[in-house]
Amino acid sequence: MAKEKKLVEAITSMDVDFAQWYTDVVKKAELCDYASVKGCMVIKPAGYAIWENIQKELDRRFKEMGVENVYMPLFIPESLLEKEKDHVEGFAPEVAWVTQGGLESLQERLCVRPTSETLFCDFYARDIHSYRDLPKVYNQWCSVVRWEKTTRPFLRSREFLWQEGHTAHATAEEAEERTIQMLNVYADFCEEVLAIPVIRGQKTDKEKFAGAEATYTIEALMHDGKALQSGTSHNFGDGFAKAFGIQYAAKDNSLQYVHQTSWGMTTRMIGALIMVHGDDSGLVLPPWIAPTQVMIVPVQQQKEGVLDVAFEIRDILSGFRVKVDDSDKSPGWKFSESEMRGIPVRVEIGPRDIANREAVLVRRDTHEKISVPLDEIAARVGELLETIQKDMLERARAHRDAHTYVATEYEEFVKTINEKPGFVKAMWCGCQECEDKIKEDTSATSRCMPFKQEQLSDHCVCCGKPAKKMVYWGRAY
Amino acid sequence: MAKEKKLVEAITSMDVDFAQWYTDVVKKAELCDYASVKGCMVIKPAGYAIWENIQKELDRRFKEMGVENVYMPLFIPESLLEKEKDHVEGFAPEVAWVTQGGLESLQERLCVRPTSETLFCDFYARDIHSYRDLPKVYNQWCSVVRWEKTTRPFLRSREFLWQEGHTAHATAEEAEERTIQMLNVYADFCEEVLAIPVIRGQKTDKEKFAGAEATYTIEALMHDGKALQSGTSHNFGDGFAKAFGIQYAAKDNSLQYVHQTSWGMTTRMIGALIMVHGDDSGLVLPPWIAPTQVMIVPVQQQKEGVLDVAFEIRDILSGFRVKVDDSDKSPGWKFSESEMRGIPVRVEIGPRDIANREAVLVRRDTHEKISVPLDEIAARVGELLETIQKDMLERARAHRDAHTYVATEYEEFVKTINEKPGFVKAMWCGCQECEDKIKEDTSATSRCMPFKQEQLSDHCVCCGKPAKKMVYWGRAY
Repeated sequence: MAKEKKLVEAITSMDVDFAQWYTDVVKKAELCDYASVKGCMVIKPAGYAIWENIQKELDRRFKEMGVENVYMPLFIPESLLEKEKDHVEGFAPEVAWVTQGGLESLQERLCVRPTSETLFCDFYARDIHSYRDLPKVYNQWCSVVRWEKTTRPFLRSREFLWQEGHTAHATAEEAEERTIQMLNVYADFCEEVLAIPVIRGQKTDKEKFAGAEATYTIEALMHDGKALQSGTSHNFGDGFAKAFGIQYAAKDNSLQYVHQTSWGMTTRMIGALIMVHGDDSGLVLPPWIAPTQVMIVPVQQQKEGVLDVAFEIRDILSGFRVKVDDSDKSPGWKFSESEMRGIPVRVEIGPRDIANREAVLVRRDTHEKISVPLDEIAARVGELLETIQKDMLERARAHRDAHTYVATEYEEFVKTINEKPGFVKAMWCGCQECEDKIKEDTSATSRCMPFKQEQLSDHCVCCGKPAKKMVYWGRAY
Repeated sequence: MAKEKKLVEAITSMDVDFAQWYTDVVKKAELCDYASVKGCMVIKPAGYAIWENIQKELDRRFKEMGVENVYMPLFIPESLLEKEKDHVEGFAPEVAWVTQGGLESLQERLCVRPTSETLFCDFYARDIHSYRDLPKVYNQWCSVVRWEKTTRPFLRSREFLWQEGHTAHATAEEAEERTIQMLNVYADFCEEVLAIPVIRGQKTDKEKFAGAEATYTIEALMHDGKALQSGTSHNFGDGFAKAFGIQYAAKDNSLQYVHQTSWGMTTRMIGALIMVHGDDSGLVLPPWIAPTQVMIVPVQQQKEGVLDVAFEIRDILSGFRVKVDDSDKSPGWKFSESEMRGIPVRVEIGPRDIANREAVLVRRDTHEKISVPLDEIAARVGELLETIQKDMLERARAHRDAHTYVATEYEEFVKTINEKPGFVKAMWCGCQECEDKIKEDTSATSRCMPFKQEQLSDHCVCCGKPAKKMVYWGRAY
């Protein structure tokens, strides 16, 4: 028993210190480890397997939308990065520079891509000639580097993994349509697969991407009431096209600039999974993303027949991602370990269960135990996984809704931000001055102007002038 | 007709200029393009889709062998790279160095990984404590950078994509077993999926990997008679473990060094596919790796019903990777284009075929045309793909065997290397002096000491001293 306790005691309670709880879960669930390079991480098998499932599911959805995968170089020549003014201003202060290749100094510095708009634009300028070459709907899976000062595993690191889609279209309408379409792919993926409810909306000008005309975002609420930007989709209009000279001959032979978009989702979603669903026993993974959905733990496995039945059950459950823990650890330790790793369903099977021709299913999310007849186990596990997936989304939605507040006056707004972690919905005049003041007074930022607008009052919560938009505000990761 | 001719005429004949033919195919089959950074490439959708299929198939085979995927950082601190003497000597002259992060100069230079032994070792030193932590059988899919002076698309570029497996074992035997096991995974994959026959063997000390005790390799022969090293697997013994201090407590509580391996395969295999199977009409892809296996080309598609039947056939063939080319190009142009891209089977369907309830299948590899009844098309296409896959391997094997020569005396050896492009099998005394002389005299290198040894004579082909090994020699990419 001492050993079992040790595993759980190794995690700080989330109510005591949420940040420490997060770090403990990352470490004890063996998701990632620190590396020798400050701010970089080693993604361990349990963490990478989640990323592989994210990739598989997103990539499938992308391909259904006509997306094609490509690979662009890791390096961007300084002169290329500088071609679009807003973009370089946004990224130059936080890139890593290669100045030597082999034994020689480079004539021009190369930055390690922080994002690849400039590389795609450079390629499109050479590759797009006629309306027949459009649209280009390309994506790449890769790592990018941003020289962040403060870092946290998965949430903010100097190198992270992501996908970045970059498209070019004949018309502004088509670009806008694609921007929204991909935001909806992200939102549906988060809700259906990660069981994370999101607010879909548009970023204010202050918060939009460097070089974008419009940035759309999905915003999720973590268990501690802080927001996490979970995916963004940008409409560039023809700004990059003009900077890079990306033109096509239209059907009427006139030369036109293309309209572009880009959109990305990153390994930070692993952080979101931890912070939305985790509890004091560790990670809790939604079934549809869990690398292992069912862990079978034999009890008194040294007794004759127990392991045989455990492996029989594994074979019966082969339609799921299932494993048997037949290591020489104690059952209690195995229970804690499968909880720590967030495995959605545990099957306990011992001599008494076998005698009764039944097994015990244990839900990771609620700890509920359910005895089921062995000959119904496949159907019952299937139903249970569905139920868990649904319940996890509903619980996360209820938590978010319970932590979403409304404020119409400034005093109330500041008090709410300070005392009630969560989203605050409030009206806004549209001026950056108010955003700046709110950030200074509360450290909250505008998360998004949601697509679903509400008329909470007629005046800006900050300056009192006529309101233009309802905004979700919150402190964010 | 002028247009159709243009597409094929755009390729130089392989007999006229093989290097130019290669570049033309890369470009016209739209596999990759040059990038703004010298020596780097943009992998386009047609090229990347091949890589995705390589990844999918290799990754599946790896996972069956107990391999787990992880992700290590892109950067290696200089002090870490320097920990293993042979390794740093091998790689330091060809790495790219990051010296600035954001606006500041770094205190220690970071190299962009040319390979990740040092990162895995650094991690293993922290993560491995007991025999219970072994074996570690990790792999990562990523890009690496080597500052090459002369580059060619896919074959040698400053950045390329690959997988690198890195394992740690309790015993020397287990490490050796894993090294050979993974070499065999590569060899089987090449032969079964890429239809490329390979020689399995060991590298000489001169040609082995920097820091390895033994390097095993698979060597393939290209159409022009040059060799291509197609995958390598290294046994490091405990050399890295000693340099990095990777020790574990054995069952008897004694502290032991681990034994390590690494193994990799890269995007250069796309180059191998081109150079083994391609012809003067472009790329020829083996069915099991082809992103599109069947292209349906409607003839007189404006006639009523033709497109309907084309799409019906697509639905009937939905068990394969199938597309319909319903663009407004001429059928002849579409034929050339699907040939250029190497699509294994083309289905031609026009009004006359429809009247006869049949379709014409055209093999990409032989250009053979076969009429088949529409109601047998799924079975016939399936058989044809199997046949093509098998025939392509056999043809490549026959070509390789016909271009593999034997020499027992030096004059004959040099003459053969100079006049008959291909492999030359010859006996070797085991001294690097002979390897150096052969390279100087012929520019051929020892490709490998094959596992299947033959006793061609009793003396070294170069110095005449007693022979120790039969070696495959050849000029190589």
